[in-house]
Amino acid sequence: MKIVSDLCKFPSLSDSHVVLMDVNRTRVENVLVLAKELTKYFNAKLKFSIVETIKNAVEGSDFVINTALAGGHGYLDLVRSIGEKHGYYRGIDAQNFNFVSDYLNLTNWNQLTLFLKIARTIEKYAPNAWYLQAANPVMEGTTLVSTQTGIKMVGFCHGHHAVEAIAKFLGVSEYEWQVGGVNHGIWLTKFRTKDGKDLYKEVEKALQKTRYEEFKPSNPFDDQLSPVAWEMYKLYGLFPIGDTVRNSTWKYHRDLQTKIKWYGAPWGGADSEIGWKWYVEELSRVVGVIDMFAKMVREGAKINELKTGTQIDDYLKEILSEKLSGEQHVPFINSVVSKVPGRFVVNVLNKGKIKNLEDDVAVEICATVCGEKFEYEETHIPERVVNWYLKPRILLAKQAIDAFLNKNVRLIADILERDPRTKSTEQVEKLIAELYTVVRQEAEKVEQQE
Amino acid sequence: MKIVSDLCKFPSLSDSHVVLMDVNRTRVENVLVLAKELTKYFNAKLKFSIVETIKNAVEGSDFVINTALAGGHGYLDLVRSIGEKHGYYRGIDAQNFNFVSDYLNLTNWNQLTLFLKIARTIEKYAPNAWYLQAANPVMEGTTLVSTQTGIKMVGFCHGHHAVEAIAKFLGVSEYEWQVGGVNHGIWLTKFRTKDGKDLYKEVEKALQKTRYEEFKPSNPFDDQLSPVAWEMYKLYGLFPIGDTVRNSTWKYHRDLQTKIKWYGAPWGGADSEIGWKWYVEELSRVVGVIDMFAKMVREGAKINELKTGTQIDDYLKEILSEKLSGEQHVPFINSVVSKVPGRFVVNVLNKGKIKNLEDDVAVEICATVCGEKFEYEETHIPERVVNWYLKPRILLAKQAIDAFLNKNVRLIADILERDPRTKSTEQVEKLIAELYTVVRQEAEKVEQQE
Repeated sequence: MKIVSDLCKFPSLSDSHVVLMDVNRTRVENVLVLAKELTKYFNAKLKFSIVETIKNAVEGSDFVINTALAGGHGYLDLVRSIGEKHGYYRGIDAQNFNFVSDYLNLTNWNQLTLFLKIARTIEKYAPNAWYLQAANPVMEGTTLVSTQTGIKMVGFCHGHHAVEAIAKFLGVSEYEWQVGGVNHGIWLTKFRTKDGKDLYKEVEKALQKTRYEEFKPSNPFDDQLSPVAWEMYKLYGLFPIGDTVRNSTWKYHRDLQTKIKWYGAPWGGADSEIGWKWYVEELSRVVGVIDMFAKMVREGAKINELKTGTQIDDYLKEILSEKLSGEQHVPFINSVVSKVPGRFVVNVLNKGKIKNLEDDVAVEICATVCGEKFEYEETHIPERVVNWYLKPRILLAKQAIDAFLNKNVRLIADILERDPRTKSTEQVEKLIAELYTVVRQEAEKVEQQE
Repeated sequence: MKIVSDLCKFPSLSDSHVVLMDVNRTRVENVLVLAKELTKYFNAKLKFSIVETIKNAVEGSDFVINTALAGGHGYLDLVRSIGEKHGYYRGIDAQNFNFVSDYLNLTNWNQLTLFLKIARTIEKYAPNAWYLQAANPVMEGTTLVSTQTGIKMVGFCHGHHAVEAIAKFLGVSEYEWQVGGVNHGIWLTKFRTKDGKDLYKEVEKALQKTRYEEFKPSNPFDDQLSPVAWEMYKLYGLFPIGDTVRNSTWKYHRDLQTKIKWYGAPWGGADSEIGWKWYVEELSRVVGVIDMFAKMVREGAKINELKTGTQIDDYLKEILSEKLSGEQHVPFINSVVSKVPGRFVVNVLNKGKIKNLEDDVAVEICATVCGEKFEYEETHIPERVVNWYLKPRILLAKQAIDAFLNKNVRLIADILERDPRTKSTEQVEKLIAELYTVVRQEAEKVEQQE
């Protein structure tokens, strides 16, 4: 809905035809009902329709946005539970620098298959279209598609907005910022006042006087100022931004007790069994509300009259306001189509953009986009971050992609043999036998899907 | 003694003055006695003398060979035992791709301090001298010295000779070979007959029919054809050479039983508690024999009459033969001095020599040396080896060097937090408090030493 709302707010994108596709018919029909209603509310000129195949969704497109999670949360839960059954707390995808619970790169072969399938369909049926990759894992997905196909693509995440939390905490309202790194591994590479004063000095002062150990999160995702964030800053020398805070090391994730110590009580962050349960329940509540809203709209209610008595009303209010959502998809499309320069945080193959990082992997970096031209900001990341965080993270991505492309479970075994949770080779072998039967089957399903 | 014997066999190196230095006075005096005797035996023109400080050893030199192990085996045993006390089987330096028991990079700050001290002395007192780094860890040492000082240096190891064991096993006597990678992480990058037929086909055939699981080693170091070597070949696609076989992953090193399974009974390879005990005893026996020989020579015996009734007699026979030892130091010096081209396996900063590997780290690569000119062979290493072996190994080296240069135990803790043997942060903290008190003290001693 955020994307539809944003679309309504760009007159330059009037007369766009938006094609919706989802494997869940009810869900996509509900979105259609609300999208039309929203268009009407804003008096925008947008046409919506539903299609049933990827080919039909792609053909004739200028932009393809992918936000799908193949297999949904049910799949994530299943592979996680098989991992846990064999001794891998929070599943085998939980690895150093990769603890975000819906960012699987070792078992999400169905998701990676879907990415490639969409990309190859674009290559064939809409070779000039832009592919906007907004589904996780963004880093692996962008790397995979960009190295395996020749299409124009960019990966998007909204994690960099967490810079605002730091600024707010320091009491700074006017500031310049830059982030860089890889998706879910981005660092505050510039942070200064409009007149060039380095705001890291304020961060340093705050570090001296903040008792961050006593941090109390307002929800499981409230971690930008958690003890982990500060500890990471002390070790690496830059502040980790957004989901980077979740992607720390086993030190902070060993078990629930450890997570609670570092990410705050009661949840221990979004990626603990408690925090994730909270999130999935929220998510299903939102889905329920959308179903309800669609029903009400079908029965004649106006979109601005919908109410739940919960936080969702604020969300709805935002969608109906003149303000943009903060998601980058539509502003990006506008910058490409209307040649209005916009500043974005994009995921694209590195190719020298960040020194000391490999060329053939997707980095997340600030860029000004105008038409089809990207101007990347010079981004300096200190060696400490490169050698202690980014390089090991990038290696994991490359290994995950290699295992996926070659469907090689021996490589997965090699990763697990180095996993702190592994006690024996037998454990690894049993896990792989059970888990990868499922993983292969689900990837096969996506392969078959039209 | 091998080096002295080699020196005697190069008439072009006649009239060299060899200066010996060792912190152990008795040991160096014994070497002097035997060196002089060997020179007499070969009728070579070499002058030997003993000096007491690094400065005196270096000043006026053309070549400085470092084979010293700061703190000796006593130090290795001590740091290993503190590690084991806190739950780190075989000590904290035992890490993926680094299990060789005298190749410490996390705790050997005394050794790294010594490397730098010698290098800086060369920089000051013999800036045109070559520094031949033959002491472990060669990779970290060569990287450290080459990035921190401007001297001419090369690191040497003899591990590549293990190619001969593979050739012998296949029944091939005439062949061309090439290795590449990093020290103790080298791979057979070329292996063919003189007329260009790829001998990997023979390796592949052997793989099909060899029951390598039944491998019985003749000694703990006999591992070139052990099950691990074959498994590594199957996973990585190239054959690991020499100590590379020891530097596998935790899968093969988890405990004694695992080591025995993979490296063969009864020792479980050189790096098990049993295998290493065997080696240290052998070593002390050799030192005892050298002491004995020196005593006998002092009492008037001729070097060619010395006998022990053990394998050491074969070793002695080899030293007294016309054959070179196979160690690279003296042939390298000859190639530099006499401009006789020689093929060597050298450790030098990569700087683009092996693609896909970082520039600022020492690689081990084949080169033809003539005068001061090195011609490096084009060395292609497949991505599988790069991404699954070399890059993680290189990261560990960089991290070890970073921790050493900044004397930062927080970085050591970060490595340990990702170690499969770590159960809690408290364990890491206690270990570091005890271990790094010793590590710092010993490094300090080397710093103070003249």
